[in-house]
Amino acid sequence: MGWGDLGAFGEPSKETPNLDQMAAEGMLFLDFYTANPLCSPSRAALLTGRLPVRNGFYTTNAHARNAYTPQDIVGGIPDSELLLPELLKKAGYVNKIIGKWHLGHRPQFHPLKHGFDEWFGSPNCHFGPFDNRALPNIPLYRDWEMIGRYYEDFKIDLKTGEANLTQLYLQEALDFISKQQASQQPFFLYWAIDATHAPVYASKAFLGTSQRGLYGDAVREIDDSVGKILRHLQNLGISENTFVFFTSDNGAALISAPKQGGSNGRFLCGKQTTFEGGMREPAIAWWPGHIRAGGVSHQLGSVMDLFTTSLSLAGLQPPGDRQIDGIDLLPVILQGKLMDRPIFYYRGNEMMAVRVGLYKAHYWTWSNSWEEYSKGIDFCPGQNVSGVTTHTQEEHTKLPLLFHLGRDPGEKYPLSFTSNEYQSAMERISLVVQQHKATMVPGVPQLNVCDKAVMNWSPPGCEKLGKCLKPPKSDPKKCFWPH
Amino acid sequence: MGWGDLGAFGEPSKETPNLDQMAAEGMLFLDFYTANPLCSPSRAALLTGRLPVRNGFYTTNAHARNAYTPQDIVGGIPDSELLLPELLKKAGYVNKIIGKWHLGHRPQFHPLKHGFDEWFGSPNCHFGPFDNRALPNIPLYRDWEMIGRYYEDFKIDLKTGEANLTQLYLQEALDFISKQQASQQPFFLYWAIDATHAPVYASKAFLGTSQRGLYGDAVREIDDSVGKILRHLQNLGISENTFVFFTSDNGAALISAPKQGGSNGRFLCGKQTTFEGGMREPAIAWWPGHIRAGGVSHQLGSVMDLFTTSLSLAGLQPPGDRQIDGIDLLPVILQGKLMDRPIFYYRGNEMMAVRVGLYKAHYWTWSNSWEEYSKGIDFCPGQNVSGVTTHTQEEHTKLPLLFHLGRDPGEKYPLSFTSNEYQSAMERISLVVQQHKATMVPGVPQLNVCDKAVMNWSPPGCEKLGKCLKPPKSDPKKCFWPH
Repeated sequence: MGWGDLGAFGEPSKETPNLDQMAAEGMLFLDFYTANPLCSPSRAALLTGRLPVRNGFYTTNAHARNAYTPQDIVGGIPDSELLLPELLKKAGYVNKIIGKWHLGHRPQFHPLKHGFDEWFGSPNCHFGPFDNRALPNIPLYRDWEMIGRYYEDFKIDLKTGEANLTQLYLQEALDFISKQQASQQPFFLYWAIDATHAPVYASKAFLGTSQRGLYGDAVREIDDSVGKILRHLQNLGISENTFVFFTSDNGAALISAPKQGGSNGRFLCGKQTTFEGGMREPAIAWWPGHIRAGGVSHQLGSVMDLFTTSLSLAGLQPPGDRQIDGIDLLPVILQGKLMDRPIFYYRGNEMMAVRVGLYKAHYWTWSNSWEEYSKGIDFCPGQNVSGVTTHTQEEHTKLPLLFHLGRDPGEKYPLSFTSNEYQSAMERISLVVQQHKATMVPGVPQLNVCDKAVMNWSPPGCEKLGKCLKPPKSDPKKCFWPH
Repeated sequence: MGWGDLGAFGEPSKETPNLDQMAAEGMLFLDFYTANPLCSPSRAALLTGRLPVRNGFYTTNAHARNAYTPQDIVGGIPDSELLLPELLKKAGYVNKIIGKWHLGHRPQFHPLKHGFDEWFGSPNCHFGPFDNRALPNIPLYRDWEMIGRYYEDFKIDLKTGEANLTQLYLQEALDFISKQQASQQPFFLYWAIDATHAPVYASKAFLGTSQRGLYGDAVREIDDSVGKILRHLQNLGISENTFVFFTSDNGAALISAPKQGGSNGRFLCGKQTTFEGGMREPAIAWWPGHIRAGGVSHQLGSVMDLFTTSLSLAGLQPPGDRQIDGIDLLPVILQGKLMDRPIFYYRGNEMMAVRVGLYKAHYWTWSNSWEEYSKGIDFCPGQNVSGVTTHTQEEHTKLPLLFHLGRDPGEKYPLSFTSNEYQSAMERISLVVQQHKATMVPGVPQLNVCDKAVMNWSPPGCEKLGKCLKPPKSDPKKCFWPH
């Protein structure tokens, strides 16, 4: 989902009344970022509070490449990483993940081995259908074991776009919340639905309800579901004791637009890129009785802050033995404070850009290669900013391209290298970058090796269902990451 | 000002709390249009309820050219046109224009000859400063006579961007409202400030207050002024008896961006074009006690509707002896109805495009000529949609380019000519266009002839101020309209 997909963020169809209402009752973050323009690293960052380059969710197979966790990925979240649910357990929290995990699907990476108590969802994206020969269909898990596979037991009709998955995920959330309220135990619910990701789907009741086509139908269903979850919290009388945050893991995939892709508003390009459209996200904090209704914040925020903020809410400290990139947003949310902090934009092993205040400096620019672009893969359709949306990796480390995101949110007009404004902004930014790089200790890259043998052939529980498949012989290779 | 310039419409800096509040208390129009992508024709359409091609505010000097009323224009609003204030007089209204008139500056076009009772403002844009030899500086009028000139008596500091004009216009509005309230006479106030038009200015108190630079400072000052006007109505106890509508006369001039140009959100291109960025406008209706707070409408609306709607509010009928393009929006505003009506996008003498429902068909496409473009005049900076943002006038009358503005508000993905959707949408649209063209009676074009002798050399009242200038000899020529 992109920054521009909600009515509250200016989507012209304004079809998200529940999320808009959530914003009206809570706090809207206008300058909130994911930690990576791609799903798996972004989610790893959210749950660890650390940049992907630290927690291992990146590749060194080639320079500045996005990587994620397809079925043949060998790596996953390292045991050495401390995840938010692991830490929340210490404060008595019961933790549930509903939806897409995406932090590795091999046994050692199972979410219940990393702090979650319950799971209903899938380890990977709902790509398919597959023939169960070259590729197995993606399994859905309930807790430790699989309970079926997408397209087989959980239907997704690619022709009509119909699938009731969001409804399943919604019901699961409502049930979990009811159960936790009844048992009086604090809980952490990570509601990581995969709707709006291509192939886009929506339930029958939502099909054809949007001006925006199928993608809009999916957004409407998410909006409706969020509304039901918030009302459920209110009806149970626990809304004033429950902190809710809504955001997305990367910008809208313009490559799938218009049929399966959303909107990044007026920001440049989309998913896969380190331009604003790839990483600035819609974000809303909600906590009736604590957050002043209708608040708006320009705090530079990150999904990694949800790690530190959640710990803070639980009365816990972030681990002191490692670098944590997330900051505690409670002073922002509760007292309207603004804290000075940079945003780093990474693509794989490269820091492509950094934002300090309203300035954003690009040290490297690249959308994708000419080779990929010539195949029709366009991350910036209808947009071309000379020297910025480049199809070769352009190095600007000596003289970064500098944009003022207040005057130029679309990153169209780089500041003159000879201006005083450039000089003084870059002085400040260079110090931030220098410090960042000097203290950077990259983690062991987890997204380098791929092997068809590790795919979801025989997940735990497959025997009970008669759904075990025979894996091919192991043949580990360097994963190919084209962009 | 563009569709994307207000917080309520998704401007990322969200710096328009008063206009956002006006929307929260009133009704937000998301699909509201001007009648032309340029100032004079748009304003003539607003005040006559008629398309510029009917009321004469267009040119036939060349095909599909935008034209307006610079100082050397010979034409203006014809006496045969009935303006909103002329009609409102019949219902006892006192009418005032504050700000830019732009419907012709020669004596016969004076606003007080066309129904206004009072005027404080200028006949033309605040371009300058001029040397009073080749070009005279633009005069400001109070009622019948000039009271000074821009840059001479009304300072605009082009270096700092400081000018207190919006404050003067605000005070004039507050005073007029107070006077009308005291005298218990109904009033029509046309608050046509010229801030945000280049050269952009703001008062000292607003300079440097926006994230967006000088343009944002000007927007903030307008926002603040609107807030003060609305509060004034409330304080006087007449807000429930006063209908207020906020909108703009054309899309943001991206050619002036980023320093002097605003935002059209995610819409294509800007001022001067018939893409959405050129003609879709921010629009808010406000009438406490009558309009349900927080309403949102997808009614296709037009500035011309303000003519018919205002008459309706005053209990008057639109003139029956001529084609009126504006419709009465009261059923939309008061009862939430939706009415089927097309939007026509003209450039000069050509119907470039039409919107019917969510479909928009382009019969002609053009941004500007290669010649102008090569000089750096770019109406679509950073945007290029092949075959759409063309630099030659492309005719599509036989097979129009069709876009679905719900799925594709950015006009990036024309529908396939062979699709069923194209066929059925075009059937409907063709009928609308056929009917429109069959009944079209163009007015006498007013924007064809230019003559330096008609400039603001010696406006009425110049003698009292010692500010009369000697005009050159009359030398009428065809005006040159490059785009």
